[in-house]
Amino acid sequence: MAGGRGTRFWPRSRKTRAKQVLPVLGGRSLIRQTFDRLRPLVPPERFLVITNIYLRGEIASQLPEIPPDQVIVEPVGRNTAPCIGLGARILLERDPEALMGVFPADHVIAGEAAFRRVIERAARLASAGSLVVLGIRPRWPETGYGYIEFQDDQVRRFREKPNLAAAKRFLRSGRFFWNSGMFVWKASAIWQALRRHLPRTAAILAAPPADLPALYPRCQNISIDYAVLEKARNIAGIRCPEFGWNDVGSWNAVYELLPRDRRGNVARTEALFHHSRRSYVDAPGRLVALVGVDDLIVVDTPDALLVARRDRAQQVGEVVKILEKQRRDDLL
Amino acid sequence: MAGGRGTRFWPRSRKTRAKQVLPVLGGRSLIRQTFDRLRPLVPPERFLVITNIYLRGEIASQLPEIPPDQVIVEPVGRNTAPCIGLGARILLERDPEALMGVFPADHVIAGEAAFRRVIERAARLASAGSLVVLGIRPRWPETGYGYIEFQDDQVRRFREKPNLAAAKRFLRSGRFFWNSGMFVWKASAIWQALRRHLPRTAAILAAPPADLPALYPRCQNISIDYAVLEKARNIAGIRCPEFGWNDVGSWNAVYELLPRDRRGNVARTEALFHHSRRSYVDAPGRLVALVGVDDLIVVDTPDALLVARRDRAQQVGEVVKILEKQRRDDLL
Repeated sequence: MAGGRGTRFWPRSRKTRAKQVLPVLGGRSLIRQTFDRLRPLVPPERFLVITNIYLRGEIASQLPEIPPDQVIVEPVGRNTAPCIGLGARILLERDPEALMGVFPADHVIAGEAAFRRVIERAARLASAGSLVVLGIRPRWPETGYGYIEFQDDQVRRFREKPNLAAAKRFLRSGRFFWNSGMFVWKASAIWQALRRHLPRTAAILAAPPADLPALYPRCQNISIDYAVLEKARNIAGIRCPEFGWNDVGSWNAVYELLPRDRRGNVARTEALFHHSRRSYVDAPGRLVALVGVDDLIVVDTPDALLVARRDRAQQVGEVVKILEKQRRDDLL
Repeated sequence: MAGGRGTRFWPRSRKTRAKQVLPVLGGRSLIRQTFDRLRPLVPPERFLVITNIYLRGEIASQLPEIPPDQVIVEPVGRNTAPCIGLGARILLERDPEALMGVFPADHVIAGEAAFRRVIERAARLASAGSLVVLGIRPRWPETGYGYIEFQDDQVRRFREKPNLAAAKRFLRSGRFFWNSGMFVWKASAIWQALRRHLPRTAAILAAPPADLPALYPRCQNISIDYAVLEKARNIAGIRCPEFGWNDVGSWNAVYELLPRDRRGNVARTEALFHHSRRSYVDAPGRLVALVGVDDLIVVDTPDALLVARRDRAQQVGEVVKILEKQRRDDLL
């Protein structure tokens, strides 16, 4: 799944070079890292990338191993349920027994070997008919994720994004895991579940491919979690061992993932920190001097500069919404 | 006097385009404003500008009315006493009775008519032999200026830059005025005072002009206040009426001098303030988005970007010192 906008990574992330195709952490782009991480498990000709019209070319050129017609364009973004349904339908046409793994293109995972062992285990469960959800042991009381509540080895129920008090309770209890958005199942199993729980969207996805561009916008705009997982009976959850998962959700996550100097600063480009601490600088081509400021994100591009408080990094996406209203396509 | 570096206005201010030649407040440069303010009192051919080698060309082109050989280059900067002595010597060669006004090139004064009336009054006092100092009624307990203590109409004594407690006491008492750095006197009177109180420097300044470049660096590095005014007997002070004087000492002073929106923000260039207040943005050619930050100064140039807390704007000069140590001539 590579259709996101990554608006919280504005101004670096734009429509045609969104977060997943950027080397957000240096080196390889996030989608290239995702491909390389899965490549030992699956040959390139079995990858399917679902993205949007703006990113198709860039993704195809970053992943030349994948057959170009397997970089699929969603006519519009409609959250994860239609996207996953589209993928399942395409796989089913090839192989009614296909096993399907679903992975967001913009996560990082430090411990790749441990990750792949989990996927192999998930594949075994999925072969037996389960819809397998990967849970990540929470490291802080995050309010931006859904949670999976376990009872012993079994998924008890899904919980929507909690408020802070609930998130703290979840963290203490030890029974709640972050919903990573990574899934493994038979394509036929998720397709059946979609037909049952989201029939209108499933019917659209079953239409002849030539009709999809016109019909797809009518798909329900809903996540696979709400649409299917909260309702299905054949759910299996895996409480993943610690393998350094991070969904790189904001500039602050990038700051947290990178090595810092002794005053807590991260300089991706030349910077002079004067009485300044715990700040992040990324401004190619110019020296940045910070004077007397703490906990700032500074990201510069040729036409836009962001200065944000680290603990407000989530609100950067709101800037993009404002620019959309102002029809500033040049900055989107 | 136009020899300053204006290091607190880095990165906009550089060696070859220092604060005084920049349109810091929009429109005319500070030195052009200073010239225009004094022009109704003095014909252009009686202006003398003392500056440094880096700024000479720019100043001459901004003030084409002044004869080019009256834009004088100090071989090195040695604070105000040698600079004023050099000016006095040059004027005395032309006219032993010359009346001399001394004005920093980088101040702003909103009420020009009131200002000129004060200068005319100062000129009368100076003609009678006094060294006239212009005092500004303090508007806050500034610790960056020297003060003049008055007793009724008379200057009682000069006070060096006070600490905050003393500055608050000065403000309350009503007897203390900021030393504006603007003076009026006979060239012969200040020259005599320099010969008496700073004889070594006066002797250097009396040397043949051809020898000055070699000798000038040996002048004492001292302000006219410490060198002469604190010691001389024939001081007269003027407690200026409010005419909107500001020495534009830092980016924060620029912020304070400009109109602000209802959240206290100043955008010199295109800016988007999102949950951000009381901040200053000057970044030609790019949109600046501030997210969740208050009281920031953001100044961008093609090769350097400054992000400073407003109440630390004085420390911007320290960045320049660090860059000098690092021999970053490209950024100075």
